[in-house]
Amino acid sequence: MVAKLTAAERSAALASLPGWEAVDGRDAIRRKVKFADFNAAWGFMTRVALLADKQDHHPEWSNVYNRVEILLTTHDCDGLSQRDVKLAQAIDRILTESGN
Amino acid sequence: MVAKLTAAERSAALASLPGWEAVDGRDAIRRKVKFADFNAAWGFMTRVALLADKQDHHPEWSNVYNRVEILLTTHDCDGLSQRDVKLAQAIDRILTESGN
Repeated sequence: MVAKLTAAERSAALASLPGWEAVDGRDAIRRKVKFADFNAAWGFMTRVALLADKQDHHPEWSNVYNRVEILLTTHDCDGLSQRDVKLAQAIDRILTESGN
Repeated sequence: MVAKLTAAERSAALASLPGWEAVDGRDAIRRKVKFADFNAAWGFMTRVALLADKQDHHPEWSNVYNRVEILLTTHDCDGLSQRDVKLAQAIDRILTESGN
């Protein structure tokens, strides 16, 4: 069973992930990203998809043309866990590498 | 400029696309699909992504693990057009081919 972050761990995680915001009404974090076009958005999503599947931890996400919205939470503990922090950090690295 | 479907064309389109439903409050159609797992869901989305980009007509869609929700509408005419019908038909063919 994966452990839910404590209040202190949650605050520290959010402070360390400036691109992410808390989600109203859910113990989750969200990042919205805008790309040049669909091609760029899909390329990003594909990298995240492979990574998420390897980590066996999948985002709740949506895409409209060049915009992608990603929500992370851990269903197993009904809230944020270290798995979300790890995936968020990896997503941030992909975004940095691709100039976002 | 792409033309918005007339009321009669809209009814005929929905009748010909039984997997799709009208969306409350928007001139759009939606289909929800459930797959065996993320791998299957992502494989489907990838096929749709290539197709949509080729047609230069992109869905508004979301994914949560093995579930995909697709909404089609045409921003250029602020409602349903033949482009949505064409993409919906192609999506249905992909689903049939993959046993859904």
